[in-house]
Amino acid sequence: MTKLNGEFELIKHITAGPIRKEVICGIGDDAAVIKYGNKFLLLTTDTIVENDHFSFSYFTPEQVGIKAIESNFSDIAAMGGKPLYVLVSLVLKSDSTMHMVDGIYKGMRKRCKQYNVDIIGGDTTHGDVNVITITLIGEIDKKYLCMRKDAKPGDLIFVTGLLGASTAGLHLFRREIKGFEKIKAYHTTPKSRLDVSWEIAGYANAMEDISDGLASELRNISEQSKCGAIVYADKVPIDRQTYMAAQACGENALDFALYGGEDFELVYTVSKERSKKAYGYCVGEIIKGRSVHLKKGNRLTKLTKFGYDHFKKNNSK
Amino acid sequence: MTKLNGEFELIKHITAGPIRKEVICGIGDDAAVIKYGNKFLLLTTDTIVENDHFSFSYFTPEQVGIKAIESNFSDIAAMGGKPLYVLVSLVLKSDSTMHMVDGIYKGMRKRCKQYNVDIIGGDTTHGDVNVITITLIGEIDKKYLCMRKDAKPGDLIFVTGLLGASTAGLHLFRREIKGFEKIKAYHTTPKSRLDVSWEIAGYANAMEDISDGLASELRNISEQSKCGAIVYADKVPIDRQTYMAAQACGENALDFALYGGEDFELVYTVSKERSKKAYGYCVGEIIKGRSVHLKKGNRLTKLTKFGYDHFKKNNSK
Repeated sequence: MTKLNGEFELIKHITAGPIRKEVICGIGDDAAVIKYGNKFLLLTTDTIVENDHFSFSYFTPEQVGIKAIESNFSDIAAMGGKPLYVLVSLVLKSDSTMHMVDGIYKGMRKRCKQYNVDIIGGDTTHGDVNVITITLIGEIDKKYLCMRKDAKPGDLIFVTGLLGASTAGLHLFRREIKGFEKIKAYHTTPKSRLDVSWEIAGYANAMEDISDGLASELRNISEQSKCGAIVYADKVPIDRQTYMAAQACGENALDFALYGGEDFELVYTVSKERSKKAYGYCVGEIIKGRSVHLKKGNRLTKLTKFGYDHFKKNNSK
Repeated sequence: MTKLNGEFELIKHITAGPIRKEVICGIGDDAAVIKYGNKFLLLTTDTIVENDHFSFSYFTPEQVGIKAIESNFSDIAAMGGKPLYVLVSLVLKSDSTMHMVDGIYKGMRKRCKQYNVDIIGGDTTHGDVNVITITLIGEIDKKYLCMRKDAKPGDLIFVTGLLGASTAGLHLFRREIKGFEKIKAYHTTPKSRLDVSWEIAGYANAMEDISDGLASELRNISEQSKCGAIVYADKVPIDRQTYMAAQACGENALDFALYGGEDFELVYTVSKERSKKAYGYCVGEIIKGRSVHLKKGNRLTKLTKFGYDHFKKNNSK
């Protein structure tokens, strides 16, 4: 569930708080959390728009379906939860083909099947642009719930895998650069980290998925946990191929990792005591204060740029 | 939850059945039904697209929000359920204003408040057309669940209110005909029948909301209940103003009621024995067979045209 962007956060009718007492968390985390029976329900929705989030120039319909599902799986993974049910809303242009729609569903069903998730309904309608909105319902036991607000000064920051590759892939496609198939695949066929999220939820304090770049996610965690963060630039895990791809594009691989997006890895914080068995790569630490800093060698820089803004003009995706 | 249209129903990856045993009903009713704890969860999603489902030429942003919410409330009403939580996905064009977004949310919150429904999350992103997708989660006690498949030959068919007015309103707007403010309001500020649905669920057999016209909804009930239906043309409740509006547009008011849509009234079937206390207008009966017939005087005509097809070219809305 992407955070409402920039100025929209200010609008009173959007940000009104929950009115029902069983709503543990509404707008502001990867998924909403509702106490229901003896479990917590998790609810999230993500929309992808043709030419903003994908392009049929380099995505197959099946890959579009995969991306739509995995971006939602990633939100449930970020809470430590288990995905259960999917609703699919398709807005289709008049020239849409059966091949396209069938392919999108094929991709969605393939990934749903891996986690025994059911597509239980949806809506299909006409519009001037192709849009896919997925709503995913999941559940979690209260004790495993991981929220953005639970980081503590002294926690170490871990990420579950390589960063920046999806954005590198996007740049390669946009510039029509041949080769780098492995990097391009990070962009067209992402995979959420449901494979490790349940284990991590057992020891993490705060957790979030990396959909808008590491810097942006750490800002969210810092703001909601009322603390600061330091990222060690030389510890951010970036594949050698991502460096090469960034170079071929005349771009910086670390920027892709910090400010790109759609890696769908997880970033989480864990106390030093419990960090020995922690999964992934340690990339920083939670500190007192409210700012996110980047540490390069001995130099500490306060970050002021944060990820991708969907409403900024001339953005890179 | 609009049924997938026309040929899309044939596609195997869309129509694959549920894989989880607690899924009582997936695609094919107004909402999906999931056994969860000692209740049934109801899940539905509806998308409205600018210039297909609404136009800012004659909708205020607040009215767009109202329409988006009420069309989803209507799906939960059709199952006999109680709405609880809403997720909102907005695709916004680059020229979207804060006034517009705030207005849409204002309309949604106003109607949500009436039923103690919480907007718990969502997604906002950029696209070349304005799209609003609402996902609504509700609940119901098993004994009150009303599905399309439970009509029985001999049942009487009731509708909860006047039909055709919303479509008449749309035609008035499209033709830029002045006046008829009451009829136009049926189109811009619809109201679901949650006010009566819980009572009706106590005695109805099958129920559905009228979003695509009475003929189309009765075809759904007939198909899923494996029976037929007769509609008495002269019993279909149509407001005098709707007749006058249809005339001003050079159209037929009965056609609006049968094949128009977005009235968001309910159509339900009830046994003759329980029909004495039934709410609304009796408009027909359920019969053996599989066809939907229109009875005008003594003449019975089998209906072959059914409502609005979102993918048909040159359609009327």
